[in-house]
Amino acid sequence: MSSGEYDIMIIGAGPAGLSAALNARVRNKSVAVVSRKLTSPSLEKAPWVDNYLGVERISGSELSARFVDHARTAGAELIESDITGIFNLGDSFAALGSDRDFSAKAVVIATGSVQEASIPGESRLLGMGVSYCATCDGPLYKGKRVVVLGYTAHAIEEANFLAQICSEVTYVAARSAKAEDAPEIAEGIRVLKKRVLGIRGENKVEEVELDGETIPADGVFVVRDSIPVERLLEGIDVADGAIVVDREMTTNVAGVFAAGDCTGRPYQVAKAVGEGLVAGLSAARYVDRMAAKK
Amino acid sequence: MSSGEYDIMIIGAGPAGLSAALNARVRNKSVAVVSRKLTSPSLEKAPWVDNYLGVERISGSELSARFVDHARTAGAELIESDITGIFNLGDSFAALGSDRDFSAKAVVIATGSVQEASIPGESRLLGMGVSYCATCDGPLYKGKRVVVLGYTAHAIEEANFLAQICSEVTYVAARSAKAEDAPEIAEGIRVLKKRVLGIRGENKVEEVELDGETIPADGVFVVRDSIPVERLLEGIDVADGAIVVDREMTTNVAGVFAAGDCTGRPYQVAKAVGEGLVAGLSAARYVDRMAAKK
Repeated sequence: MSSGEYDIMIIGAGPAGLSAALNARVRNKSVAVVSRKLTSPSLEKAPWVDNYLGVERISGSELSARFVDHARTAGAELIESDITGIFNLGDSFAALGSDRDFSAKAVVIATGSVQEASIPGESRLLGMGVSYCATCDGPLYKGKRVVVLGYTAHAIEEANFLAQICSEVTYVAARSAKAEDAPEIAEGIRVLKKRVLGIRGENKVEEVELDGETIPADGVFVVRDSIPVERLLEGIDVADGAIVVDREMTTNVAGVFAAGDCTGRPYQVAKAVGEGLVAGLSAARYVDRMAAKK
Repeated sequence: MSSGEYDIMIIGAGPAGLSAALNARVRNKSVAVVSRKLTSPSLEKAPWVDNYLGVERISGSELSARFVDHARTAGAELIESDITGIFNLGDSFAALGSDRDFSAKAVVIATGSVQEASIPGESRLLGMGVSYCATCDGPLYKGKRVVVLGYTAHAIEEANFLAQICSEVTYVAARSAKAEDAPEIAEGIRVLKKRVLGIRGENKVEEVELDGETIPADGVFVVRDSIPVERLLEGIDVADGAIVVDREMTTNVAGVFAAGDCTGRPYQVAKAVGEGLVAGLSAARYVDRMAAKK
């Protein structure tokens, strides 16, 4: 379907994405919210939120649950899936998910902030051994040696999955995940807690350099809470790690809007919800204008 | 006090002003919220709000009451007063209220949208017979003929007050106020329901032109829900009726921030709350920077 199966596809289920979804539904658009988890990992971890006007002192996880309920009640379809890439097809967009793909007439990016700096070599070797998704790219490394750089508890699942396919899996706990969140790591995986210095190789990944040890590898899986947005969608304007938007939450790519932490500081619920509303309404207007042109 | 009695003075008690207040309090600033009424007149009138994420289907007046409670609990001082002008004193700002004046190191303007277009002659004759506040300027018209152009129920109070001072008061119901809101009009006031075409006079107000009738007058009181912002603070940048702001909610005047409907569409609670947060935090940072310079 070249015109997209949804009117609007929203990447991220935090306050910004869900507010965009709610308000696009108010404008009667069909809406898919696609996110690795149906919450915001950073909001989920907040013990208390007391500066979202009208909602006094609530735990982050309870507030997140209310947000999810509200968007779902409004008729948004909420889907748990990684998104590893978005492609501009001219009059629609396609997104590659872990189990299925998605398409829509307009996109709202609400993927949160990427706190981690890029790893030296990561950008250069992307697609040449560097990957962000084991489910998507794991089979390419059947019988080979891979390294998983884990910046989130979810990374252990990725490593465990790869252990079923690859000859050798090294798991680097690049940031210590909270014990209660983390699944148990599978037998046979070598676990290291060392600082990551870089990914090396000429035209393909050859090794991962850690503080005090170098590991030969055919593939490197970098697993963060979210993918750096400039790698999610080619050509999108990013400055100082934030998507460049105007007051309508329009990006430089026609049909793509952004909201929340991914557009920059302050990293706060109210800012994300407000921007989400604006992005959702702007995306709905964009869809209406495209329809009027046909 | 040249440095201001408050750290931050917020004009307007709608979602934007109260969110700014809440978040400036989180940053430990002393905060005064000054507003004709401690609510947003437009939110108050909304039968239902269902697109403020996390708060499903609530009446506008109940949501407004929650907002007021939240800001008050956080320690903001809420004050009912008109503000007829804000003056830049260099390292602080003074605001003229109906019963008292206020001063602060930084200002957040959150006065809502001004839906009514300006009346022909209004800007040109401001201060030369055109006024926005009977309490402030009424005494200047003792024994004289005045016209009140009422765009809000509150205007009748203004007319009643002027009837005690002036020789002749004409009340023009420029927009019909809801009967239940409106106080009874005082004896002796001539009431007209006619369209306002313009205010005329060479260097001072001479007459008010209505549809089918011209009324000689020494003074004209234009009473709306809010004062056009370019008249509230001289030199502030306004385009298409909206205060020009950047993504930090900074205006062109150092120390003055803006949030909510007064910065433009969409006129929605979530946008106002989000912008209020950003403006409140930006104002707090401004106050901190000024303190560090001393």
